[in-house]
Amino acid sequence: MEQRAFQDYYPDDVSHCYGCGRLNEQGIQLKSYWDKEETVATVTPRPYHTAIPGYVYGGFLASIIDCHGTGSAAAAAYKAEGRRMDSGPPLRFVTASLRVDYLKPTPMGVPLELRGTIKEVSRKKVTTAITVTAAGKVCARGEVVAVLMPEHMIPSSG
Amino acid sequence: MEQRAFQDYYPDDVSHCYGCGRLNEQGIQLKSYWDKEETVATVTPRPYHTAIPGYVYGGFLASIIDCHGTGSAAAAAYKAEGRRMDSGPPLRFVTASLRVDYLKPTPMGVPLELRGTIKEVSRKKVTTAITVTAAGKVCARGEVVAVLMPEHMIPSSG
Repeated sequence: MEQRAFQDYYPDDVSHCYGCGRLNEQGIQLKSYWDKEETVATVTPRPYHTAIPGYVYGGFLASIIDCHGTGSAAAAAYKAEGRRMDSGPPLRFVTASLRVDYLKPTPMGVPLELRGTIKEVSRKKVTTAITVTAAGKVCARGEVVAVLMPEHMIPSSG
Repeated sequence: MEQRAFQDYYPDDVSHCYGCGRLNEQGIQLKSYWDKEETVATVTPRPYHTAIPGYVYGGFLASIIDCHGTGSAAAAAYKAEGRRMDSGPPLRFVTASLRVDYLKPTPMGVPLELRGTIKEVSRKKVTTAITVTAAGKVCARGEVVAVLMPEHMIPSSG
């Protein structure tokens, strides 16, 4: 796996996301990487990211699926263009739709592994299927449809 | 509207959820109420619940839709049984699946209003359609399928 995460290539002015912004001190700071054809991220929820005691909050799982999906989308779009993530212009994706199926309760206190499979990729839209595994069991499945961020939303373009 | 929120009726041992647990000090503490046939909640994201600067994080929207959905499910299930939320046995729902469509960027700095419509209700499963409105515009639509919490997940039953 590469040492630098997808999110480490995001320009500073779009790196404040609660889920994956490296500049959000209170945030989750998710980091996603390629692992062959799949994308992977590992994260351990904080104690307060709980649902009922002992289990991970479903909104936390939706959040990490969301950010792993937009990160995977950016990486896949660069790859489709045959260029590196540090080349310009930057590609940053936002979520158009998110679906999560909670298959079984997700235990607290263990690292969660997210694995993404790119289902469809075009210049402006990428769909990623994602599993969340805890202690060897797939606890949730998600799908993220991500679209290229409209230019007017990028702070530095304003 | 009633003064007491759906979540205020949850037993203490299932009131630690990051999204809606009144006992989770770091959490969002969402409060949902009936408004005639709809369910309603209002919440203002904290500054760090951002996506890119100026806009609300999609994972935060998924989280509040999730908790408004499980809260609405509990309220609808009590109503279907013709009993008050402070009567036993307690009904507490968890999310089986969640879908969110992000229609437009959701601005930070204003209260978000969630409105739920109960689509289907049975003793063990409730489906709720939810809109999130900011500054008069519907920014996201969600659907939550919630199921009655399995007894083995309730701490006091262990």
